[in-house]
Amino acid sequence: MSTPQTTNVDSIGALLSPRSIAVIGASSNGARIGGRPLRYLIDAGYTGAIYPVNPSHPSVQGLKCYPDLASIAAPVDVAVIALPSEHVVEAVQACADQGVKGVILFSAGFAEVDAAGAALQQEVCRIARSVGMRLLGPNCLGAFDSAAGFFATFAQVFDGGVVRPGPIAIASQSGACGAYLVHLCMQRDIGVRYWITTGNEADVDLSECMLWLARAPEVKVIVAYAESVRNGATFIEALETARRNRKPVVMLKVGRSSSGARAAASHTGALAGEDAVYDAVLRQYGVFRADSIEQLLDIANACADGIFPDSRSIGLVTGSGGLGAQMADVADARGLDVAPLPQAAQDRIKAILPFAAAGNPIDITAQAVNDISLISRAMEIVLTEGDYGAVVCFLVSAPASAAQTEPLLRAFTALRQRFPERLIVLSFAAPPAIVRSFEAAGFPVFEDVNRAVITIAALASFGESFRVVRSDECTPAAAVDAAPTPWAEALDEHSAKQLLAQNGIPSWPEHVATDAAGVGRVAVDLGCPVALKILSPDIPHKSEVGGVLLNVASPDAATEAAQALLERVALLRPDARLTGVLVSPMCRGGVETICGVFRDPVFGPVVMFGLGGIHVEVLRDVAFRLAPINEREALSMVREIRGHALLEGVRGAPPSDVDALAKALSRLSWFAVTHRDRVEEIDLNPFVVMPRGEGAFALDALIIEKESNSLTG
Amino acid sequence: MSTPQTTNVDSIGALLSPRSIAVIGASSNGARIGGRPLRYLIDAGYTGAIYPVNPSHPSVQGLKCYPDLASIAAPVDVAVIALPSEHVVEAVQACADQGVKGVILFSAGFAEVDAAGAALQQEVCRIARSVGMRLLGPNCLGAFDSAAGFFATFAQVFDGGVVRPGPIAIASQSGACGAYLVHLCMQRDIGVRYWITTGNEADVDLSECMLWLARAPEVKVIVAYAESVRNGATFIEALETARRNRKPVVMLKVGRSSSGARAAASHTGALAGEDAVYDAVLRQYGVFRADSIEQLLDIANACADGIFPDSRSIGLVTGSGGLGAQMADVADARGLDVAPLPQAAQDRIKAILPFAAAGNPIDITAQAVNDISLISRAMEIVLTEGDYGAVVCFLVSAPASAAQTEPLLRAFTALRQRFPERLIVLSFAAPPAIVRSFEAAGFPVFEDVNRAVITIAALASFGESFRVVRSDECTPAAAVDAAPTPWAEALDEHSAKQLLAQNGIPSWPEHVATDAAGVGRVAVDLGCPVALKILSPDIPHKSEVGGVLLNVASPDAATEAAQALLERVALLRPDARLTGVLVSPMCRGGVETICGVFRDPVFGPVVMFGLGGIHVEVLRDVAFRLAPINEREALSMVREIRGHALLEGVRGAPPSDVDALAKALSRLSWFAVTHRDRVEEIDLNPFVVMPRGEGAFALDALIIEKESNSLTG
Repeated sequence: MSTPQTTNVDSIGALLSPRSIAVIGASSNGARIGGRPLRYLIDAGYTGAIYPVNPSHPSVQGLKCYPDLASIAAPVDVAVIALPSEHVVEAVQACADQGVKGVILFSAGFAEVDAAGAALQQEVCRIARSVGMRLLGPNCLGAFDSAAGFFATFAQVFDGGVVRPGPIAIASQSGACGAYLVHLCMQRDIGVRYWITTGNEADVDLSECMLWLARAPEVKVIVAYAESVRNGATFIEALETARRNRKPVVMLKVGRSSSGARAAASHTGALAGEDAVYDAVLRQYGVFRADSIEQLLDIANACADGIFPDSRSIGLVTGSGGLGAQMADVADARGLDVAPLPQAAQDRIKAILPFAAAGNPIDITAQAVNDISLISRAMEIVLTEGDYGAVVCFLVSAPASAAQTEPLLRAFTALRQRFPERLIVLSFAAPPAIVRSFEAAGFPVFEDVNRAVITIAALASFGESFRVVRSDECTPAAAVDAAPTPWAEALDEHSAKQLLAQNGIPSWPEHVATDAAGVGRVAVDLGCPVALKILSPDIPHKSEVGGVLLNVASPDAATEAAQALLERVALLRPDARLTGVLVSPMCRGGVETICGVFRDPVFGPVVMFGLGGIHVEVLRDVAFRLAPINEREALSMVREIRGHALLEGVRGAPPSDVDALAKALSRLSWFAVTHRDRVEEIDLNPFVVMPRGEGAFALDALIIEKESNSLTG
Repeated sequence: MSTPQTTNVDSIGALLSPRSIAVIGASSNGARIGGRPLRYLIDAGYTGAIYPVNPSHPSVQGLKCYPDLASIAAPVDVAVIALPSEHVVEAVQACADQGVKGVILFSAGFAEVDAAGAALQQEVCRIARSVGMRLLGPNCLGAFDSAAGFFATFAQVFDGGVVRPGPIAIASQSGACGAYLVHLCMQRDIGVRYWITTGNEADVDLSECMLWLARAPEVKVIVAYAESVRNGATFIEALETARRNRKPVVMLKVGRSSSGARAAASHTGALAGEDAVYDAVLRQYGVFRADSIEQLLDIANACADGIFPDSRSIGLVTGSGGLGAQMADVADARGLDVAPLPQAAQDRIKAILPFAAAGNPIDITAQAVNDISLISRAMEIVLTEGDYGAVVCFLVSAPASAAQTEPLLRAFTALRQRFPERLIVLSFAAPPAIVRSFEAAGFPVFEDVNRAVITIAALASFGESFRVVRSDECTPAAAVDAAPTPWAEALDEHSAKQLLAQNGIPSWPEHVATDAAGVGRVAVDLGCPVALKILSPDIPHKSEVGGVLLNVASPDAATEAAQALLERVALLRPDARLTGVLVSPMCRGGVETICGVFRDPVFGPVVMFGLGGIHVEVLRDVAFRLAPINEREALSMVREIRGHALLEGVRGAPPSDVDALAKALSRLSWFAVTHRDRVEEIDLNPFVVMPRGEGAFALDALIIEKESNSLTG
């Protein structure tokens, strides 16, 4: 049911930068939905042709008005439709007939309302797609390209004037939220180049817009607001394109609290709340997932300067020891390294500021903040000798003091010129005009020290993400090319393990016996104690029929137990094909984990990892990654869970073979991608990780195939 | 080494509201440390007498100047000292001689610098205390009472004018941070009544100031900044007094990141990072611990209206579905209940807004935000029929629109008058003057929806805390009165368990045998398997000598094993007194937990609880409470840990007897408080909680006595 991947992403550009625009349902009243876009286009000095369309007026807002689209002699690139929903099909048909390249459909009353509206939406989309015309909306607030003065929107936010161009682009599924973001940008004097609201996404969706923005060289930062992604593949392509182009993506994805909804059941797929998958995907592709609108803009604005630290170490220069400690707390929580200054540099700081704490935070004290030369010299030492990825300087409210504003601005402008490539973030409280002047000098400024430090952490993460050289093996495109190896229709535990072993995912040794006597013979060969398990492609959950016996102490006991087992299961499940009994030596030692993959409806195969027992089922201590992953990514996944110390060897236990674990996770992800059309879910539970050098093995394996496959089999 | 508890808290008031003030080290230069307080006192219209003291000038800033304190004929209530540290002892002595009631000591160069400074500070403190004169500082920024125009500070923040009075009081250990807070209050037009910076706390400390503020009826909200608390008892008294007076305390406590420092060892005391104890104490006494300066003021300002919700349910009225979802996420994360409107109310909303989502969030859509009567009617329905503790209304940027500002303000003023007792928080973006006008109408306003929801969660928590009726048994004062029961010097495991059992903390049944043959006889009586443990007051950690044997299968095996055990221990620890061997039936079933108490240097006995095994040692899934606690508090502690579901019965296990657990935790806390002078630490590890109705028992118990006790024993 997923939307087919659209390949003509360039057409998004045609929607945003047309040479001519018609406004169908044009109004003389600049406060109405059909009047606002005309007013904004005129106000913003749009240089293309503007054609108001309304049969009731000869002219609208000083422009010649046309009775219908056909009456316009010149080509119309984009048409805005501001009509009640009942007139929309006719208008879209007219656009299609006239060769319009893109339609921006403001009208509400479609799929967001009821089934009739959904049908209407489908019809509108069908007309547009039949001629290759792109359609933005319905139920959207429109779009703009501020550099072209192209404001095809009825967002009230531009009533007092339009936004200035800048390096930021915004794509939002919500019109109101998109408009709010622009309003806040204008309030903070942040320039915005493109803005697209996708509304009901009948045709154009958020992922396409993000992909186009990721490719557009004039865009330096992508801000996105999403409720749900329709096209996982395009979304990933957009994120990966942005990453390759060193273009940060900052995103507000709502729906965290729904994450508990699917958490009731216990199989692998159900462990992933939908939100957990989004969270994993965003982290995996280097997106900063903002907690709030405010944070979204904090980070986006700071990204606009294009300086991304090359390490996670941070220097904290502060006029308040207390807020220095606060910054250190936040830095620690965000994984930044508050490394001390080298001793020589500390000595140099002490020489100019005897009462300063010179380690890190470097507390220059509130008094020193009044002596600008001291700040400059301290900052010079920290920037030259500290080897920090970023430095934050908390100036209390010194810049607000009339006598200090200009000298401080001069001092910091000089620092900026001397260290043009270094990320320096300021924190102080002052009226907006003063804050703007420091921002214009090249410094992100935050009143709250936490926001300064969080911003640095985000920028450092972008830097890390940009530096990753992803091998081609780990792009979804390459994965799909891998040649799948076919397998027999019905997989029991043993054949599933064999198949996985062929694909590099090892299992614990085991033997198949077809009857009770055979079980006894295998037990003699292996030596006791052994484990016995019933083998049947029709019994995925063996414990439900008492199909697992552990610690069987002797060959005789094994024979006897196997006989009882076969009889019991035959009685309980007369329908099931019994292919035999699995016999294996008992596995001693090692750490039990759960490894699995499941198919996410949006993103496809997702790998999951957790520790066994209560860790996954009760503590929900699980990590996810979009498949495929390489071993490096698998290791990061292993380290992400709270209980990862258990694999490092605690309470006298030896460290576990995490390399073998990571290799298996990577191979498992590859297997799932290669067989994505066939595999619904794979559970390796438990997957035991032995001490370092001794490997890691599936003790149990379950491959669930997709319904459609079973039906056609 | 703790500072003795000061009982004359009223003397803090004398420091803040004197009838006369001398400024020793007065300067004509209003920008100098000795000049600023004079300038501020004059500017703020302080009506008391002001006596500049400086031998070099006949007058200073238009006031008659005195060569020394003795030359002032009238009594001096408070003296500010703004002199270099080397002249401070002499000045403080002069103050003491002249009967000054309080000294505010700005000077730096004391304990914050070096040992010589610390000695100087001690001398200054000694002089002050010898005559009962209170001393604020040294190394502080001073204090103010804005209503009296008493600004005894050199904080630069008042260069442009002083702050207006208001219901908020600020106590800060950091001068710079305190000044920054006031600056931000002035920027947000928040009134501040009292402000005290305690600096090095030679005499007056933060806890005393907070206690005084908690008692002062004119103070409605206490804002505190702390690095470390010196006097735990006074601090707790301050928090409990504030709570009883329905006075919210909002606190920034830095030092979270140091919490990992003590986490290496594995015994109970070491499990508590210092910060975890602060965190528990603040939660336990209803303090809102802010994450940032910004949040500190968000919450404090919203508290000033004195409306605290009577439930955690929240109605979300929004002009943006997307940001409605965002608010729902935050509400969920903060434990607020986003309960749907009753169906009848939903129908009424639908009748006026057919396209609205009426459940909760109630999405009135961006269009409706333009029709003020629709907002009013929707809010009226939500407030009347929703039964919500609080309602947040997100107005996008409608109030910023020139045509809507006044009508919206009128509409909300009418709502405020109709629902004066309801907490209604607004979120919108608009210029500061417009925001202020809505705030003045009685609505907290936030640009960011998250901050609106977080504020409501904080106010709801204050409401909950204010409603708690704490029984007298649970105040530290009552605890200290309990009569301690003495015990013999050396406690081995068995006598420790007996002592605890006498105090209501049950142990698993066990018998003491004095020799191997006796062990065999007990094993016959009990029936096997049994557990054997070596018993010695000198071997607290039995496993280190192989002193624990589990699952001993027969009486003969028990005799044999006991003999070997006694011989081995005698060999390994010839010094240890062996009092016998503990024999007990094996304990089957139940959930292993760890219960304990330890003595925090600031707050005294702290109770800790966690699940057994890796939960505490690896996952750090632990809860703490200041002792004593009642059973209700003990239950909240049990529910606080991430793994608490394990006690509710998972994977087919029955629910555990948490009532018995809570009772034992409460009794343990009482025991620790009663014997606070003797007990260093108690570990019950494991403490097994059986299925509901079957109790909870210590399988092991260790009581570590304070060093001083052992030495005197």
